[in-house]
Amino acid sequence: MKSLAALALAMTVAPVGASAASGADDDVSSVAPALQRYERETLDAGLWARPGLSARDRSVVTVAAVIARNQAGLMPAQIRRALDNGVKPAELSEIITHLAFYAGWGNAMAAVDATRPIYAEQGIGADQLPAVAPALLPLDEAQEARRAASVEQTTGPASPGLVRDTTEVLFRDLWLRPDLAPRDRSLVTVSALISAGHVAQMPFHLNRAMDNGLSREEASEVISHLAYYAGWPNAFSAAPVAREVFEKRANP
Amino acid sequence: MKSLAALALAMTVAPVGASAASGADDDVSSVAPALQRYERETLDAGLWARPGLSARDRSVVTVAAVIARNQAGLMPAQIRRALDNGVKPAELSEIITHLAFYAGWGNAMAAVDATRPIYAEQGIGADQLPAVAPALLPLDEAQEARRAASVEQTTGPASPGLVRDTTEVLFRDLWLRPDLAPRDRSLVTVSALISAGHVAQMPFHLNRAMDNGLSREEASEVISHLAYYAGWPNAFSAAPVAREVFEKRANP
Amino acid sequence: MKSLAALALAMTVAPVGASAASGADDDVSSVAPALQRYERETLDAGLWARPGLSARDRSVVTVAAVIARNQAGLMPAQIRRALDNGVKPAELSEIITHLAFYAGWGNAMAAVDATRPIYAEQGIGADQLPAVAPALLPLDEAQEARRAASVEQTTGPASPGLVRDTTEVLFRDLWLRPDLAPRDRSLVTVSALISAGHVAQMPFHLNRAMDNGLSREEASEVISHLAYYAGWPNAFSAAPVAREVFEKRANP
Repeated sequence: MKSLAALALAMTVAPVGASAASGADDDVSSVAPALQRYERETLDAGLWARPGLSARDRSVVTVAAVIARNQAGLMPAQIRRALDNGVKPAELSEIITHLAFYAGWGNAMAAVDATRPIYAEQGIGADQLPAVAPALLPLDEAQEARRAASVEQTTGPASPGLVRDTTEVLFRDLWLRPDLAPRDRSLVTVSALISAGHVAQMPFHLNRAMDNGLSREEASEVISHLAYYAGWPNAFSAAPVAREVFEKRANP
Repeated sequence: MKSLAALALAMTVAPVGASAASGADDDVSSVAPALQRYERETLDAGLWARPGLSARDRSVVTVAAVIARNQAGLMPAQIRRALDNGVKPAELSEIITHLAFYAGWGNAMAAVDATRPIYAEQGIGADQLPAVAPALLPLDEAQEARRAASVEQTTGPASPGLVRDTTEVLFRDLWLRPDLAPRDRSLVTVSALISAGHVAQMPFHLNRAMDNGLSREEASEVISHLAYYAGWPNAFSAAPVAREVFEKRANP
Repeated sequence: MKSLAALALAMTVAPVGASAASGADDDVSSVAPALQRYERETLDAGLWARPGLSARDRSVVTVAAVIARNQAGLMPAQIRRALDNGVKPAELSEIITHLAFYAGWGNAMAAVDATRPIYAEQGIGADQLPAVAPALLPLDEAQEARRAASVEQTTGPASPGLVRDTTEVLFRDLWLRPDLAPRDRSLVTVSALISAGHVAQMPFHLNRAMDNGLSREEASEVISHLAYYAGWPNAFSAAPVAREVFEKRANP
């Protein structure tokens, strides 16, 4: 029965799409040889090696994209790549937790399922994960008061519960957790917004990302990187919104 | 071979993501301990116990969200929760059928796959399911004539087939099926629209939901509930649309 | 061990949702008997047999929809149906490659996974697939120069990388690959845009599709066909955009 148990484990662990998603060449070329070439040349040797955004940041962006788009097939390969590219396990854990709120609970749960066997396999235990209730980062009370007042005005009349949760759960708790830098938390948020087509929320979060240290060059390259992982239409919808944010910051 | 068959059945039945999605604590905490705490405290002890929307309605909203977002991983746990919270099997069957049209055929088929083993396990048979062709609810012909005229004007020049199917398949058939109350059918529709970011269709369906008996307080809480299951950006996109509907109804 | 291996293969090959998605009646009727009737009568005997769009084109549209929506459950049945309806393996391979860019990399990889066992089973080998680097179709340089100038103006300030990749990877390479006719490539693109709610990109691509030979009647029927596979809200969001394109072309 040992081999049966091993088979069962392997099949439980391997998500739908793992073989092609992991880039095993034979798997792609038996259906679309050109797609395999694009993956090798245009993505791996091209996009991922370009200046403008570090490989580590590209992994943060890509992991955010596959979680926001709920693509279980791509998750294992991209999670491994993120760890290889220097994203720390504690950061990855916070990225998943963050996206439970910005991409939806089920998306985070699918990411948990994809990550668990990889952490087990790499011996990543509780000592490398964020504390449940760590000391929070300091809050800029004036900035938070402005944000809360703005949301109260636009959203309060529609949903007081949403306004309250946004303050208490997100901006006075989640965003202040220390194991993911605010700049990276913003990078994850902006990437998730672009990947799911939520351009209405982009101006606030792209400005916040740049306030938190994301450069204009990096933001530009986030959009062109996401063209590949979230599809061209999402990148094209994001570009004019980013342009307006860039121009307003240049000429405030 | 019996144990092999049992294993095969278990593996066929268990969708990707079932373990974490079912809330088994160890599964979540081995990747993101904080996420487990949020699930227990913020969702289960907080959100689901809040006033403003019954647990039964929260289940209707959540099931609509996971089907509209095609999240196979969350479906089993949320379908069980819905049955536990008093959603009748016939209602659940109609919710899935309704969403075949409002969320897409594949979404409904994934929900069928998730529901089938639960019905089998709980002994829910054909006698508890809606008839294929029941006596339909009466139709408000004047209201339907206004709706059809409006759609004919906006959509007829682009797609006569869509206009015809909307009348024949949806408003003179699907919406009149008796095993899901019109108020609940509207609740499912509005939840699916918010969950998939379809704000353009919200004014018509939120007005219809409130005409069908959904209170403003309930509608507000639908939005804040969905922040967790469809992600904050979808809730924030829905809020200003709901606000405008609320204001126009208050000052017609 | 032979039967175990066969079982393992069957389980690996069968994606989540395959049973219901393949239309096995018992599977659907045990949850939603009415949904089974709609599938037989409204879809199979109705929609798919309607004039306005050939069965082959309906398959191109449906395959594009399930890939754009990342619905692994529906893919196997729709890919088989496409081959049965006369879509050539080389065309299907190009559809998947095309959608890697227009729907996102993970969507294409999921489609590769769904297609591989079908090609293997039907004996479709490398000789029936497009070359990696075939002689490209001729490019209309004047039209391409206008497109590039327009994108440079709107998108260049936000993301120079996106502008460059759009030119080099998409319009001077992907769109010129010969194994999918430009009219079909446009049909796939428009279907993917509608299916994922990307109406902002529709005017450009619907005009291009009609320039490439898609008739107005066919475009209208694409929208009503997609109501079923991408959900009514996406069809209703697409209709007014299509109407405006139709009117501008009629009265330029």
